[in-house]
Amino acid sequence: MVKVKVGIINVTGYAGSELARLLFRHPRAEVVSVTGRSAAGQKLGDVFPHLADMDMKITAELDRSVDVAFSAMPHKASAEAVLPLLKAGVKVIDISADFRLKDGALYPRWYQFSHPAPELLGEAVYGLTELYRRQIRKARLVANPGCYPTGAILALAPALKAGLIRPDVILDSKSGISGAGRALALNTHFAEASDSVSAYGLDGHRHLPEIIQELSLLNRKRPVSVTFIPHLIPMTRGILTTCYASFKPGKLSGDSAARELMALYREFYKGEPFVRVVDTPPGTKHTWGNNYCLIHPVIDPRANRLVVVSVLDNLVKGAAGQAIENMNVMFGFDETAGLEALAVYP
Amino acid sequence: MVKVKVGIINVTGYAGSELARLLFRHPRAEVVSVTGRSAAGQKLGDVFPHLADMDMKITAELDRSVDVAFSAMPHKASAEAVLPLLKAGVKVIDISADFRLKDGALYPRWYQFSHPAPELLGEAVYGLTELYRRQIRKARLVANPGCYPTGAILALAPALKAGLIRPDVILDSKSGISGAGRALALNTHFAEASDSVSAYGLDGHRHLPEIIQELSLLNRKRPVSVTFIPHLIPMTRGILTTCYASFKPGKLSGDSAARELMALYREFYKGEPFVRVVDTPPGTKHTWGNNYCLIHPVIDPRANRLVVVSVLDNLVKGAAGQAIENMNVMFGFDETAGLEALAVYP
Amino acid sequence: MVKVKVGIINVTGYAGSELARLLFRHPRAEVVSVTGRSAAGQKLGDVFPHLADMDMKITAELDRSVDVAFSAMPHKASAEAVLPLLKAGVKVIDISADFRLKDGALYPRWYQFSHPAPELLGEAVYGLTELYRRQIRKARLVANPGCYPTGAILALAPALKAGLIRPDVILDSKSGISGAGRALALNTHFAEASDSVSAYGLDGHRHLPEIIQELSLLNRKRPVSVTFIPHLIPMTRGILTTCYASFKPGKLSGDSAARELMALYREFYKGEPFVRVVDTPPGTKHTWGNNYCLIHPVIDPRANRLVVVSVLDNLVKGAAGQAIENMNVMFGFDETAGLEALAVYP
Amino acid sequence: MVKVKVGIINVTGYAGSELARLLFRHPRAEVVSVTGRSAAGQKLGDVFPHLADMDMKITAELDRSVDVAFSAMPHKASAEAVLPLLKAGVKVIDISADFRLKDGALYPRWYQFSHPAPELLGEAVYGLTELYRRQIRKARLVANPGCYPTGAILALAPALKAGLIRPDVILDSKSGISGAGRALALNTHFAEASDSVSAYGLDGHRHLPEIIQELSLLNRKRPVSVTFIPHLIPMTRGILTTCYASFKPGKLSGDSAARELMALYREFYKGEPFVRVVDTPPGTKHTWGNNYCLIHPVIDPRANRLVVVSVLDNLVKGAAGQAIENMNVMFGFDETAGLEALAVYP
Repeated sequence: MVKVKVGIINVTGYAGSELARLLFRHPRAEVVSVTGRSAAGQKLGDVFPHLADMDMKITAELDRSVDVAFSAMPHKASAEAVLPLLKAGVKVIDISADFRLKDGALYPRWYQFSHPAPELLGEAVYGLTELYRRQIRKARLVANPGCYPTGAILALAPALKAGLIRPDVILDSKSGISGAGRALALNTHFAEASDSVSAYGLDGHRHLPEIIQELSLLNRKRPVSVTFIPHLIPMTRGILTTCYASFKPGKLSGDSAARELMALYREFYKGEPFVRVVDTPPGTKHTWGNNYCLIHPVIDPRANRLVVVSVLDNLVKGAAGQAIENMNVMFGFDETAGLEALAVYP
Repeated sequence: MVKVKVGIINVTGYAGSELARLLFRHPRAEVVSVTGRSAAGQKLGDVFPHLADMDMKITAELDRSVDVAFSAMPHKASAEAVLPLLKAGVKVIDISADFRLKDGALYPRWYQFSHPAPELLGEAVYGLTELYRRQIRKARLVANPGCYPTGAILALAPALKAGLIRPDVILDSKSGISGAGRALALNTHFAEASDSVSAYGLDGHRHLPEIIQELSLLNRKRPVSVTFIPHLIPMTRGILTTCYASFKPGKLSGDSAARELMALYREFYKGEPFVRVVDTPPGTKHTWGNNYCLIHPVIDPRANRLVVVSVLDNLVKGAAGQAIENMNVMFGFDETAGLEALAVYP
Repeated sequence: MVKVKVGIINVTGYAGSELARLLFRHPRAEVVSVTGRSAAGQKLGDVFPHLADMDMKITAELDRSVDVAFSAMPHKASAEAVLPLLKAGVKVIDISADFRLKDGALYPRWYQFSHPAPELLGEAVYGLTELYRRQIRKARLVANPGCYPTGAILALAPALKAGLIRPDVILDSKSGISGAGRALALNTHFAEASDSVSAYGLDGHRHLPEIIQELSLLNRKRPVSVTFIPHLIPMTRGILTTCYASFKPGKLSGDSAARELMALYREFYKGEPFVRVVDTPPGTKHTWGNNYCLIHPVIDPRANRLVVVSVLDNLVKGAAGQAIENMNVMFGFDETAGLEALAVYP
Repeated sequence: MVKVKVGIINVTGYAGSELARLLFRHPRAEVVSVTGRSAAGQKLGDVFPHLADMDMKITAELDRSVDVAFSAMPHKASAEAVLPLLKAGVKVIDISADFRLKDGALYPRWYQFSHPAPELLGEAVYGLTELYRRQIRKARLVANPGCYPTGAILALAPALKAGLIRPDVILDSKSGISGAGRALALNTHFAEASDSVSAYGLDGHRHLPEIIQELSLLNRKRPVSVTFIPHLIPMTRGILTTCYASFKPGKLSGDSAARELMALYREFYKGEPFVRVVDTPPGTKHTWGNNYCLIHPVIDPRANRLVVVSVLDNLVKGAAGQAIENMNVMFGFDETAGLEALAVYP
């Protein structure tokens, strides 16, 4: 069986190295080129000992003969890196935010740059497989969702689609520290981050417009107001998002409400290989290293409020794993190819 | 200077041992009797090496000649333990929930026992010094607030008192694992708890009625609806609570709103020795081992919503430290006596 | 391809659940029966959410139609559980210590029980593949090595075999907390174990006779004196062992010594799929969730001493992974079958 | 009571901020000047929220009117900073390594600089109070011991002084990550450091010559050979050192040996306020935030070897606390002044 040839742009960050880890065992794909700016010329295993078996050299530029390129570059640089690839006919899965927002005018405001190819924003498919599988199949450019948006959107999609809740939601997210990336910063220094939890992005996190865009699309294109507060948690991987929303009058009340809610969520995700609706509150550790998103919806009957908890591994379903899931859909592979390993627990 | 004689009931839990740690250096108090069921007969330093300097023996029963007793017993057992002491004229600061709720009927429902002395519920003073200092001064029975309620109430009190917000709030709390106590359980096993965050108490945590009671009192005695979801965080100490509430129409809007909000909070806590309203998002680690509650109020202008973050050390301001603060007020000591040490950071 | 039918005795501990995790994706084996005492009757996914995909029920007794049984029972109980299986013709890989020691007299002293089948101690093969591959191929009973012995023996084997060092070694081991098992104990409580390191077993850890036995065999059957001090580290997985030994006079001195040492180690482990001799000091995290043992030998020229650092995942190469490696050898499968996944990092 | 005026050079590192934390509550000292290069002009509480109560501004240069200056500068820069202060008559306690080594020729080799004032190396007193109390009393320049040397020397001093052990010791140290300082580096990034342990400095850590110097002085000035391997542990504070040494022939054997060893250690440290010889293996967490060094000496009878475990908080007894202890001795204060707080546990 011929394997597709894969390139990874910026393999030296955590999303990039996670792509390498997962793709190395993919039955239908072969990583043939990996890039990294500062580490160009080094062996992959010298930068990441756990990838020593891959025996590849990091280069400055991507080999353009690849069939598909994953970009794990920071925003702005990512768009610049993938545009020539797209022109050269390479399929692209962009893990940065550069093709997620449909409205190009949002980039200067939220990401401080003018988008170099706004004409592609309409074409790019938002790579949340559970919602856009059909479009991803034919896409040549997939915008891989952000880690926070993935957990938040999957948690609220069934309720929004069913018209259960008012269009004003609160998302309280708790993220492991790998979400802040591999670059050095005081807030990711072990001595500062361990044994502490703190909120950040209180004046507006960059994932907010992405979440609003997708939740509003789910809400029959009517705008959803979102308060989104992320928190830094002293763990390496994982995001837990607690979602709060008020039920519309007359929706889901009475003794059977909890059961109906659970049934609605189960039905929505029936057959989905990477979403599991669970009966007990999940921990992020239940998804360590794998591509699951676990969702636990409950009702606060005193306040007539929906509370949904979702957990995922920010580097897998929140980044590299979902990107591979998208590749699998784009190339017609089994959707779980390369993503079968169970979570590593404890 | 004569020191008050202090007893600690159940010194072998984390609240009890924290009382011992802090009281050992108190200039006006002397611990003369400490009890513990399973450890009776052992030396305190054998159970807790960090308390070896105290050179005390743990006994089964409290020496009744104490001037004041702190009870760190679990609920129900605590009421039973302190009733004879009260009758004997000993002042009591109860760290359990047994005298926090004014409505005795709530105990069977939330704590699964009939209160043995409901007539004391009216007399007992809720020991949140910032709100009840005057009453604590003359109290002989103080109900020390729960760890979650302390952070939540202090975070919302200024806004509720000022009538800024609607009486429907969401409290998303993140607690370190010492909050679950020293008793053994799978969810506090290091291998299960580390590298994971999870929600619990989704069907109603025991601190909820206490929070509702106090927030409603602050809201001119009109009921406040509360959704409260606690989360377990892989750290030993600390609680961060993120509070969400909608502003009433016409309140705090426009360009100066953020400034006015900050001014209102600063004014409310002016002169308070243990509350600091801070300009940047605080981390729980900033309060490690000390009695501060740090509060950071902001506005989400997109959703016209108040967001307040508070942090404290659950074993200090959330338990033992606040209990000592109450003792200081009851006995007319300097409120900060024994509580002066700065947080241990990092 | 017909799969071998596998049973796991005591799937509810960490070694047992790790066997389940790894075997679920094994191309040549199928788990058909899992047991657990307290959890009998429950679904595997209810006890371990990360194993929900396995959709198996935990039973009290093992299905005896299995081809091979892994026992993850505690010592003594393990021997009792596997004896009837052996009689019934089932191949057994015992993760407990019950068949590791060749001298049955050591069991009463180190494990406080009389061995029920001392006649099997000669037959049982010590399952360190790198040293006993030939014997494992024909074994019907494999004693899977202890987690500490695995790292220590692999670290010292090349030097001992080559006669480089004096027969008096020091092993200073640092283990993650899953090594203490899933049973509840105060020293594995998160609040006690986090942010702390401590030594234990100072009066003789149970793995000591096993280490002495195997190192002595490597030393041409001449006894090796071993000081072994294990330490508990605030991490979930991983063991790092630092080994210290004095060089025999005239061995490996001079400018080329370091290079010769490295060459000797590389030669010793040439072709081994799960041992990698590395040029830089490895971290335990480099082996998270996979079956590698990384070894870094250096010389302290000032003290004319060999220092070897080895790291592995105590639940994989130190338990379940090595057990599967043994199964692969026993059944003639590819040695890496089911064990190909790279370490999850970071 | 007039307080001595204290200055802290480089308050913005972890040793510097720990000095500030501890000195703020010192009954006989007042911090009047704090410096920091990059943070000059900022308020102390803006850099370190836990120090907000100090309400001081960080300056570029130290106020020379101080009575005593603590230097928490890196090596080389520290010597340069304190020389003018010494000339100006300020007493100096240097936390860097710049005055620890008696042999100036060691600086180029181990610290890559030529010592600017080798004539002071003889005068400088090595500030290990337990060994040099008499000299510290009259010192104007104290070289505060390194964090690793403190734990190692205190652990071995009684045995070496008594002539029990051979002059060839192994020190296996485990340090929390604050020991690596507040500067940013990949190995202190939370995602890299958490859940991992690794050895470093295998080709010779800078604390080695300091340890050799002091152990040799204890050994009647006869050289002691030292193998010293430090390890990085995923915790913020704490060092545990496990020391290994062979007994000289005829020393401490037989049934009473363990008891005699313990008695010898207890006698050696009798009356010492900050060393406690303990009967059970200590954890680093037992010293969190305080100035104790706990020592646990045992015998490995099989190998006729002494094993001593010592624990301390690297930022307190290993740095700032010991520096204050030295100040207390230099100024004739109670040795425990400012250092009375018990460890924060758990």
